[in-house]
Amino acid sequence: MALISPSRRLRRTPFSEGVEAQGVKAYTVYNRMLLPTVFESPEADYRHLKEHVQVWDVACERQVELRGPDAGKLMQMLTPRDLRGMMHGQCFYVPIVDETGGMLNDPVAVKLSEDRWWISIADSDLLYWVKGIANGWRLDVLVDEPDVSPLGIQGPKSDDLLARVFEDSVRDIKFFRFGWFQFEGRDLAIARSGYSKQGGFEIYVDGTDIGMPLWNALFDAGEDLNVRAGCPNLIERIEGGLLSYGNDMTDDNTPHECGLGKFCNTHTAIGCIGRDALLRVAAEGPVQQIRPIAIGGDKVPGCDRPWPVYANGTKVGQVTSAAWSPDFETNVAIGMMRMTHWDAGTTVEVETTDGMRPAVVQEKFWI
Amino acid sequence: MALISPSRRLRRTPFSEGVEAQGVKAYTVYNRMLLPTVFESPEADYRHLKEHVQVWDVACERQVELRGPDAGKLMQMLTPRDLRGMMHGQCFYVPIVDETGGMLNDPVAVKLSEDRWWISIADSDLLYWVKGIANGWRLDVLVDEPDVSPLGIQGPKSDDLLARVFEDSVRDIKFFRFGWFQFEGRDLAIARSGYSKQGGFEIYVDGTDIGMPLWNALFDAGEDLNVRAGCPNLIERIEGGLLSYGNDMTDDNTPHECGLGKFCNTHTAIGCIGRDALLRVAAEGPVQQIRPIAIGGDKVPGCDRPWPVYANGTKVGQVTSAAWSPDFETNVAIGMMRMTHWDAGTTVEVETTDGMRPAVVQEKFWI
Repeated sequence: MALISPSRRLRRTPFSEGVEAQGVKAYTVYNRMLLPTVFESPEADYRHLKEHVQVWDVACERQVELRGPDAGKLMQMLTPRDLRGMMHGQCFYVPIVDETGGMLNDPVAVKLSEDRWWISIADSDLLYWVKGIANGWRLDVLVDEPDVSPLGIQGPKSDDLLARVFEDSVRDIKFFRFGWFQFEGRDLAIARSGYSKQGGFEIYVDGTDIGMPLWNALFDAGEDLNVRAGCPNLIERIEGGLLSYGNDMTDDNTPHECGLGKFCNTHTAIGCIGRDALLRVAAEGPVQQIRPIAIGGDKVPGCDRPWPVYANGTKVGQVTSAAWSPDFETNVAIGMMRMTHWDAGTTVEVETTDGMRPAVVQEKFWI
Repeated sequence: MALISPSRRLRRTPFSEGVEAQGVKAYTVYNRMLLPTVFESPEADYRHLKEHVQVWDVACERQVELRGPDAGKLMQMLTPRDLRGMMHGQCFYVPIVDETGGMLNDPVAVKLSEDRWWISIADSDLLYWVKGIANGWRLDVLVDEPDVSPLGIQGPKSDDLLARVFEDSVRDIKFFRFGWFQFEGRDLAIARSGYSKQGGFEIYVDGTDIGMPLWNALFDAGEDLNVRAGCPNLIERIEGGLLSYGNDMTDDNTPHECGLGKFCNTHTAIGCIGRDALLRVAAEGPVQQIRPIAIGGDKVPGCDRPWPVYANGTKVGQVTSAAWSPDFETNVAIGMMRMTHWDAGTTVEVETTDGMRPAVVQEKFWI
């Protein structure tokens, strides 16, 4: 691996000081912000995540805030998911599409009130699309990026840790719901959500100034829980089938291709900009779709580019995320497969950067 | 420095293979794409750039293509620079602003024909803003990112190198103009432009497939010119006063604050979305502005966050790019200074990450 050059453009976060003190070894860049990728090693971080509790600097999940009378209308224009039944205090995973139905982002929408929303974004400048749409359609709404930085608490001991720092009622937060809790006199939204399958929360840290005080409070409170700094873990997220925008999908893909058809209510999501384009896809189904894929042989190299997938010498798909899974003792992978070769049990070949490997399309993700 | 984790999301370029073969040591991420930052060392790369010729993988300067009857109208909506006099074959540096006059990007617009433009972007997803505006205003224009990757040729021997690979008439290309030249039967636009003050060109490589053939042809032809792989050099670009979007300016800043008032024709740029907001700024002038700053002491650390600038204990600005200059034997820096302290010769203090340093506002950049 090469080094990453520091610059202000690759933004630090309210938690960077804590991340550095915990010995971060590698980063990626996500929304022009530093996102840790390795502390001890991907395998050791993975094992710890499955057994204990980790604090994740995911400030790079920037918020796009919509505020004003047209906030709800604008939010529905952005996504084919029907938002009419959504209540305050709910989080919805929402595919965001352009006028052709191409995915621009796959964020979580947080409904604070009828006229105030946060969109907690994946890796693309969704702010620019939303601002452009609001301007062009002359909507009565303010769109900007507030000083709000999510902090992830992930792992089986997450409830225990948060109950100590906030109050016991954090245990009652339901999946993809959030509640308001106080820290040093400030109200923070805490949601039961996060980019792992090990359970946990995301704290929407409102204000850079309380970032490190909260970070330190969590580590002070969790010493006997073996709390550590962590980060989204490549192995665990592939096992769990958590997609990554920019890796497993781009604006070339429709939500249906990404297996997100269940989040598309194309008949009732009136006002969605990409609705017309998606109606046909919704009726006929996609011709390619995301699939879990097990790749044979020993540990694969890092998947730094799409790996073509072949059957009888013909390209039938591509793999875009892959890692060796210690728990399942195979290389777990996410790929986009043509419908002719997407059935579970289909054997194919994957051209990795260190050679061709046998592979099998799986019925389900691993966890 | 920490390591950078490979993933498909941090896109490789058509020239990555060549960059790796030349021993790249560090990267940054720019428009979600890998941009080399160091080959031998920042100082050695700098010296070589000033004496010989380098080939730069700047594919990360992605293009936003506008095509259709409303392309010119849309282009003018994006920028306060008056584009009416612009001819085919010209490149214009164009601040791009939102409805508040905040900078969204500072790209180079390339006019291919009346109804076809490329916008060669700095580090933000300008594509999303342009697509949103085109959609909201119902313009008759196609907006997308084509498979076009700029390759920079920079340094005093640039003309000699390009004349060998293309034809002698590349020497006749004027500054910020481009011409069409053939390589392996394909027409490529070559502009006299680039992100250094050492002279040179940018080749708009149209098609990933000819990336490495062109790269190899340049190295084969330039052996006796001492051609090497290079990259935008932090030291040289600060000496030359070349601003970096995301470092020296963000969407918090107007073009006038960035010293780009000369590119804002607020009275005649009819249709520009941010024009109303900028009219007042243009009349009254900004209250803070970009300035060259010399920082005392030995080599400063990497500027990975804004460094506050103080005078008598009061914050009067910030430094966002800084490096030790071997040629000028001082730390050269770019900062945003309040008007009370922006005059040349003003002495201030800069709080770097390794302590307070004396500094002086300069009259001009160094080269």
